[in-house]
Amino acid sequence: MNFCSNCGSKVAFGEVPEEDRPRYHCENCDTVHYQNPNMIVGCLPVWEDKVLLCKRAIEPRHGLWTLPAGFLEIGEKACDGALRETIEEANANVEIIRLFSVYDLPTVGQVYLMFLARLNGLDFGPGKESLEVRLFRQEEIPWDKMAFSAVKFTLERYFELGDSPQAAVFMGCLTRTWDNKS
Amino acid sequence: MNFCSNCGSKVAFGEVPEEDRPRYHCENCDTVHYQNPNMIVGCLPVWEDKVLLCKRAIEPRHGLWTLPAGFLEIGEKACDGALRETIEEANANVEIIRLFSVYDLPTVGQVYLMFLARLNGLDFGPGKESLEVRLFRQEEIPWDKMAFSAVKFTLERYFELGDSPQAAVFMGCLTRTWDNKS
Repeated sequence: MNFCSNCGSKVAFGEVPEEDRPRYHCENCDTVHYQNPNMIVGCLPVWEDKVLLCKRAIEPRHGLWTLPAGFLEIGEKACDGALRETIEEANANVEIIRLFSVYDLPTVGQVYLMFLARLNGLDFGPGKESLEVRLFRQEEIPWDKMAFSAVKFTLERYFELGDSPQAAVFMGCLTRTWDNKS
Repeated sequence: MNFCSNCGSKVAFGEVPEEDRPRYHCENCDTVHYQNPNMIVGCLPVWEDKVLLCKRAIEPRHGLWTLPAGFLEIGEKACDGALRETIEEANANVEIIRLFSVYDLPTVGQVYLMFLARLNGLDFGPGKESLEVRLFRQEEIPWDKMAFSAVKFTLERYFELGDSPQAAVFMGCLTRTWDNKS
């Protein structure tokens, strides 16, 4: 951030009265520019003993596999955003069962909200952000070709406990390395 | 948003190539300025048959009651943000039990993540954003003096089902009116 989105002056980054941490702020119009984490919402679409994955056609992680997910937009509910992304990336119609996992990426400033969902049929296919969309049994999952740690976390929890009631919502976090999930 | 935070030029709002909706964008440096919902994280601190509420010392909703909660910051996990807000607003040390409710405010562009938490002791008191902090039994809750619908929703679900395993995570949404929660 270089300029104030309100008045166009140069912004400074540092201590601001009444704020407990350094912020971008404008010394001309006194606006404090907060930067907050973004939500990524998506679905874990299931069909019998299979899950639906998308091969990414875009960066980052082009060619790797992911669950349909993307940034929540203003004006939509989290679950509606997850449905929208599932249509956009996989042309798949699903019915949301429940919130399944919440995964923090504090260093990136992202929180994933992933919803367990029932695929309504086998009529799906790649949207413009996907190269390929297909169903995988547990033993077929390309674990070493996962695009994002949040996706790997969500799939691991699903195949460990399935949709058992004890599952509640799994909370995960990427702290440093890919494999650190606590 | 009037000016580009990258180059300081005037921004436009409208159609942008590759985007599925109107966005703020800069015609000078080609930056698209996404606006995404914010997360508000907080706790529902419980002690025996009581819950801890804070009377707001700030706007909006000065003088009304709320659960300790505030904007998630970049660099922190959702649950750590909830703990921080609980200390800031109520000087209360709690232990988080689990994610309890997720509440969408799509028209405002906010999603609440509220965590059920166990109060670690009775040593608490108002932080600078609170006029008063106290424990309430269910029958003492000032329902008509609640600051936010997400707080009312969270308390209602708690007193309906308590911390039963069947509870999982309650999903709520403010669509139009205060009392519409579906």
